[in-house]
Amino acid sequence: MTLTGNLLIGQHSLPGTRAAIRAINPATNTVLEPAYPGASSEQVAQACALAWSAFDSYRETSLAARAQLLETIAHEIEALGDELLERAVAETGLPLARIQGERGRTCQQLRTFARTVRAGEWLDVRVDRAQPERQPLPRADLRQRQVPLGPVAVFGASNFPLAFSVAGGDTASALAAGCPVIVKAHGAHPGTSERVGRALARAVKQCGLPEGVFSLLYGAGREVGIALVSDPRIKAVGFTGSQSGGIALCQAAQARPEPIPVYAEMSSINPVYLFPAALKARGEALAQGFVASLTQGAGQFCTNPGLVIAVQGAQLEQFVSLTSDLLQRSPAQTMLTPGIFQAYEAGVGALAEHAQCVVSGLAAQGPNQCQAQLFVTLAQDFLANPHLQAEIFGAASLLVQCADDAQMRQVTEHLEGQLTATLHLDEGDLEQARALLPTLERKAGRLLVNGWPTGVEVCDAMVHGGPFPATSDSRSTSVGTAAIQRFLRPVCYQDFPDSLLPAALKHGNPLALRRLLDGQREA
Amino acid sequence: MTLTGNLLIGQHSLPGTRAAIRAINPATNTVLEPAYPGASSEQVAQACALAWSAFDSYRETSLAARAQLLETIAHEIEALGDELLERAVAETGLPLARIQGERGRTCQQLRTFARTVRAGEWLDVRVDRAQPERQPLPRADLRQRQVPLGPVAVFGASNFPLAFSVAGGDTASALAAGCPVIVKAHGAHPGTSERVGRALARAVKQCGLPEGVFSLLYGAGREVGIALVSDPRIKAVGFTGSQSGGIALCQAAQARPEPIPVYAEMSSINPVYLFPAALKARGEALAQGFVASLTQGAGQFCTNPGLVIAVQGAQLEQFVSLTSDLLQRSPAQTMLTPGIFQAYEAGVGALAEHAQCVVSGLAAQGPNQCQAQLFVTLAQDFLANPHLQAEIFGAASLLVQCADDAQMRQVTEHLEGQLTATLHLDEGDLEQARALLPTLERKAGRLLVNGWPTGVEVCDAMVHGGPFPATSDSRSTSVGTAAIQRFLRPVCYQDFPDSLLPAALKHGNPLALRRLLDGQREA
Repeated sequence: MTLTGNLLIGQHSLPGTRAAIRAINPATNTVLEPAYPGASSEQVAQACALAWSAFDSYRETSLAARAQLLETIAHEIEALGDELLERAVAETGLPLARIQGERGRTCQQLRTFARTVRAGEWLDVRVDRAQPERQPLPRADLRQRQVPLGPVAVFGASNFPLAFSVAGGDTASALAAGCPVIVKAHGAHPGTSERVGRALARAVKQCGLPEGVFSLLYGAGREVGIALVSDPRIKAVGFTGSQSGGIALCQAAQARPEPIPVYAEMSSINPVYLFPAALKARGEALAQGFVASLTQGAGQFCTNPGLVIAVQGAQLEQFVSLTSDLLQRSPAQTMLTPGIFQAYEAGVGALAEHAQCVVSGLAAQGPNQCQAQLFVTLAQDFLANPHLQAEIFGAASLLVQCADDAQMRQVTEHLEGQLTATLHLDEGDLEQARALLPTLERKAGRLLVNGWPTGVEVCDAMVHGGPFPATSDSRSTSVGTAAIQRFLRPVCYQDFPDSLLPAALKHGNPLALRRLLDGQREA
Repeated sequence: MTLTGNLLIGQHSLPGTRAAIRAINPATNTVLEPAYPGASSEQVAQACALAWSAFDSYRETSLAARAQLLETIAHEIEALGDELLERAVAETGLPLARIQGERGRTCQQLRTFARTVRAGEWLDVRVDRAQPERQPLPRADLRQRQVPLGPVAVFGASNFPLAFSVAGGDTASALAAGCPVIVKAHGAHPGTSERVGRALARAVKQCGLPEGVFSLLYGAGREVGIALVSDPRIKAVGFTGSQSGGIALCQAAQARPEPIPVYAEMSSINPVYLFPAALKARGEALAQGFVASLTQGAGQFCTNPGLVIAVQGAQLEQFVSLTSDLLQRSPAQTMLTPGIFQAYEAGVGALAEHAQCVVSGLAAQGPNQCQAQLFVTLAQDFLANPHLQAEIFGAASLLVQCADDAQMRQVTEHLEGQLTATLHLDEGDLEQARALLPTLERKAGRLLVNGWPTGVEVCDAMVHGGPFPATSDSRSTSVGTAAIQRFLRPVCYQDFPDSLLPAALKHGNPLALRRLLDGQREA
């Protein structure tokens, strides 16, 4: 199928009327066809009106029907075949195998949410039955379920053109919750977005759902995004991207007559702690694991290990030496966009003013290539200089050398909010690690032992979130099945006749949910 | 025990150093002793530092220990005896029986949260066990629990000197979640607040918990509140009060370097729908029920029925006539404070410029007495004039007369967010009511059939919340056991050795929680 460059407003494919974006192949710096004209404010409003008109019926679809939509989307994405993969590779500079893996992950994520929807635990049904004889006052019959917030604006991320984009985790969890979705495509991969968007729109049609359940918009700059977040019919926002972008959306959402929640996953440098016994026992394996995690995907992960923290000593020097050996042989890798490459260069340049560069990877062989970098600084300098906590998106990391355990704790307490924190430890390090845990639990959404933060499993227990500025809302996760909770609110029904109750709350429990019934969980 | 007028910073009772507040007996306009000097910014910071220092240990107390604290607080409040009741009556003008009932409710609420803490469902434990053999990549062991956000600032409400104040629902749910609490007492009942605050501090001491778990501050104006919300060690806010007060706190919370969630329960006019068959079958009972709900506690409830919506006709005229008969014999009642009385008078005066006053209750016999009022307007005027949706705190209500069902739906869609919406219906009204439900679910946190909104049960299924401006966060409830969720965030532990895992996540499940284990709920 030829790409059209058109917006998708429900089932209608039509060109935008504002300044166009065009994808650039970052490996060659060539501009890709077609142009994607941006949505006008009228077109944004049209998509919002359509989403709003679809909301009341979509949110009352059966669990089975909603699960079927998610599964149909996965099927339609798979049916896009090689055309999708080729375009995604061209638009991102990412290797084909990575895009293939990401497609698998994206479809698995949709199917996982389908299972979650069917299981119905997210409805959090609570029933307190009437007690007409209670003294001094009778108790009414009270029943609570979760309902969706309303249409959700989703912003595609640069670094996962499939898994955090048009049909990514935000879209999947919002659709699972019963919310129509309007996606603002990321400017770096409009063609990939169009293909996935059309697959999604086909799935909506096949499932016989109202067309407003999904729309896809393009736009240069922030205008379309701000218009979307400011529209009164949008009730929540999902975003993965820069801190400045996320904060701009939060401010727009707060400035509305009716403020709305924004789930912005922003910046994190993901501290990795190397404890002495672990360094001693397996310094080489740690160096290998670190370099692999740091350079994976040119370091373009929210969970990239951008900070290493350890106590000074011979073992640490050995680790730095091993890491340097590996890193200096590490090939430069094409970054997602020229803009991201320039920001990486600027970030590394700024860091070089405050910390010492220990080693650089191999020099670039083509345009927009990220040369890996390891910097080092002393803990006292890290504590004194807030610039050293700035995220550099790419394969750069800063090693903070601490004089002792006390200083390591001080550095830890000084950290901003993070998506992850990782502890490399052996039996002999347990007490040191234990002493850090209370602080780390306050600082990060996910804590790892003897692993690397770059892998993010889609499952029930995952938390991809964390205190500000890692995200704008530490109470949530954007990956894993708990992500559905971001788009829900509770409603209580008091003394409703059975015929007016939604199915989830009816006296006969027709959905066979495990309700909290008079304070007891049903088996 | 004599009242001291002192702040309570942990176990330390000391006088504030800023402008003092004094309670006024609204029934007599007499000033009550002692004066309550406000906290200085240093004293606010001191309380925050103490709360922060208590956080890491308090949040890791056992479920049993935390439940015991809540039960001990209830016991200590009961042990305050008549002194508490007398002071609360003097400070609020509320009848003794009401204060007695509210004490019972407050203690029951604390004990309900103790049960909730012990049951541990709020920990939402999710375990995805390792799958080392999985292809193409092994899965790590991933375990999620909820942890508390951090110290919480709680603002006492004017209208519930016990149940929504120092040891009210916000404090109980925050302590249940594992958060230290700093209460800013409401200026209307500092003596009641001191007595309850001392009971709470005694409970903290008896339970052997760090003193920073609870502090109590006073302050004239908004200075202390804003200082509290702006302190970096405060991580969430609970508030019940005016829309302007709630929005000021939201803005202060958003302006921080690290924004924090504010749960502000603000304004609601709680529409009551009277459908024709119900009006015909039991107009008199409806009039009686309405007047009782409207005038209860001088109308000083967040869930006061401030709006009645019905289709014009003989049955409605009959209802107005019956209501007028009752209301004009309804005695004026003392309001909570001179300021609240003045705001009521101003609100009623403003409403009289836009709607017709049908009937007034009996004239005041003493100071600060609320004379009940019923106003009437046509739906087209209600739709055209946003002033008619302004909350009037007190026993005033506005009847909106609709030409037909279509106009009733239009009025419904036009409503702002509400805490409650009530439907009075008979069999013959079911289809009309059903047509409104999708809109009402979007507008309100609790929907009632054939009841009155003023009673708010403390139970699992209650929702005391709703879309803006009813609250600042529609995803939450401030009454009922789900209120604990406001003060929690998820943390995931990846590949942790059992010895480092918190008890809730250990492999042996020592807390015997019903975990979500590999996607299945444990029995």
